[in-house]
Amino acid sequence: MTALSLEERFRTGDPRALARAITLAESGLDAARPLLRAARELAAARGAAGTVVLGVTGSPGSGKSTLTDALISHLRSEGKRVAVLAVDPSSPYSGGAILGDRIRMLRHHGDSGVFVRSLASRGALGGLSARTMQVLALLEGAGFDWVILETVGVGQSEVDVAAACDHTLLVVTPAGGDGVQAFKAGIMEIADVIAVNKADLPGADRTVRELLAAQGLGAHDASTWFAPVRRTVAAKGEGIGPLVEAVLAHRAYLGAGGLHARRAARAEFEVRTLVQERVLRRARELSGDLYARVARGELDADAAADALLAGA
Amino acid sequence: MTALSLEERFRTGDPRALARAITLAESGLDAARPLLRAARELAAARGAAGTVVLGVTGSPGSGKSTLTDALISHLRSEGKRVAVLAVDPSSPYSGGAILGDRIRMLRHHGDSGVFVRSLASRGALGGLSARTMQVLALLEGAGFDWVILETVGVGQSEVDVAAACDHTLLVVTPAGGDGVQAFKAGIMEIADVIAVNKADLPGADRTVRELLAAQGLGAHDASTWFAPVRRTVAAKGEGIGPLVEAVLAHRAYLGAGGLHARRAARAEFEVRTLVQERVLRRARELSGDLYARVARGELDADAAADALLAGA
Repeated sequence: MTALSLEERFRTGDPRALARAITLAESGLDAARPLLRAARELAAARGAAGTVVLGVTGSPGSGKSTLTDALISHLRSEGKRVAVLAVDPSSPYSGGAILGDRIRMLRHHGDSGVFVRSLASRGALGGLSARTMQVLALLEGAGFDWVILETVGVGQSEVDVAAACDHTLLVVTPAGGDGVQAFKAGIMEIADVIAVNKADLPGADRTVRELLAAQGLGAHDASTWFAPVRRTVAAKGEGIGPLVEAVLAHRAYLGAGGLHARRAARAEFEVRTLVQERVLRRARELSGDLYARVARGELDADAAADALLAGA
Repeated sequence: MTALSLEERFRTGDPRALARAITLAESGLDAARPLLRAARELAAARGAAGTVVLGVTGSPGSGKSTLTDALISHLRSEGKRVAVLAVDPSSPYSGGAILGDRIRMLRHHGDSGVFVRSLASRGALGGLSARTMQVLALLEGAGFDWVILETVGVGQSEVDVAAACDHTLLVVTPAGGDGVQAFKAGIMEIADVIAVNKADLPGADRTVRELLAAQGLGAHDASTWFAPVRRTVAAKGEGIGPLVEAVLAHRAYLGAGGLHARRAARAEFEVRTLVQERVLRRARELSGDLYARVARGELDADAAADALLAGA
């Protein structure tokens, strides 16, 4: 018997090879490169029949984690294999990870059809890091039926989720005028599907009406996708089936061409993030009193930018 | 009589020279460079006695615009000259500017001690653009007593405000558990002063208590600044004096050294933003099918990043 290489084992779907590949990618090691290429090749070959990469976004307190948990249970009951990547890049000063309520996902621990990974890493830009994108690509390549990216909302990460996934699920609640806030903040525009979670609370009907009305306000024509609005009570597992159907309807709407374009956009987001991370690293190495000189008016900001790029 | 140069007129505080300088900076023209250096030199020379650069952040609907308006009225009543820069970088897909409610600020139109400018420009990174930072520097250099940067909240712009100003005012409301949300989202950590606006609504006392309690949870020692929490009803002009005093207390806490460090940090933020904007422009020029090749696993994302940087 010949020992298989890590890449060969990854290609056969060996879960330990996946775990090792993720560790390599998280560490930014070159050894991750052939694994990432293999993962992308595998994902591209499966085309539209491949992994559903779903981003879950929404304000803190909307119940994203509970909804993700309910999605896992529902998809498992249909025999689907599910991976969840939970990231918390939202706290730039503490670097903190408010992942406590994700512990509930541990109840799937003994189920080999469920893979859950938490990352507290934060991108150079305050949103998702390039490494997070790479872990996502590995999970997709490993052939899960669904890969769910869940972030602790607020900030750049909310916008990044849309760039990182095939489909974006926005979770709002009836409380606090979440729907209107989402509209005002431009977050609604990135949603492919909207869940009004905690729909057993007062005001759910009004929130649904407001969301539907707000959608009608935007520019649209016959080919415009209107994000379906679905009521859920994630804590009781209610409304999850229709939510899954809405995501699959968006996938059918995208078609093979649309999914191909989404994959290229995801790659673009990852490459750009890598570039920016490198430039920032260079800036830290170079800076000296560069910034103080700009602040005193002794040096143009543009000239300082030139100096950083020349060395990058 | 000799005609003065634009820079000379800017240095004398000519409002038309300021308007022209802002137009040049917004357009990214090289002619803005000497004016920016002059503005920074003037601001640095005034030191701690110089312009109070205040960023106002908070979720949509918290009343930031109304509070900014109330701040203008209060500061004018004290004889201060005030400039407001209102930016809306938060809607990445529409590029939209929800600046309607800022129209109220037009009532200061006839007052030469008030300067209001709106920018809808969005930075390459989804937050503030380098151009916005430069307009801010020009306003500071022009010698206003206060310069207020107000953004349509949500997203990267909220975090960027803290990097762009001397002091950050976080506006929350009693409704919707804003205070707790801010804490959970890590936004509270960037606040130097907190306004509980709409404090005539039910729940204001509870919100204040929660905010104070949340502050106690963070890491702190004897030198830690605890953001003062002030009740305001901006629509009625209530509570504005104590809010201004809280900002000035933070300024005294920072001292000359702290303000110097903040200015260097602001310059750093601007230079980094410039660098990233240039790299992104290069990426658009270069890309071709680069990203599709990454998506198909034919090319490493790292190799693609190398290719972009080599040409940047």
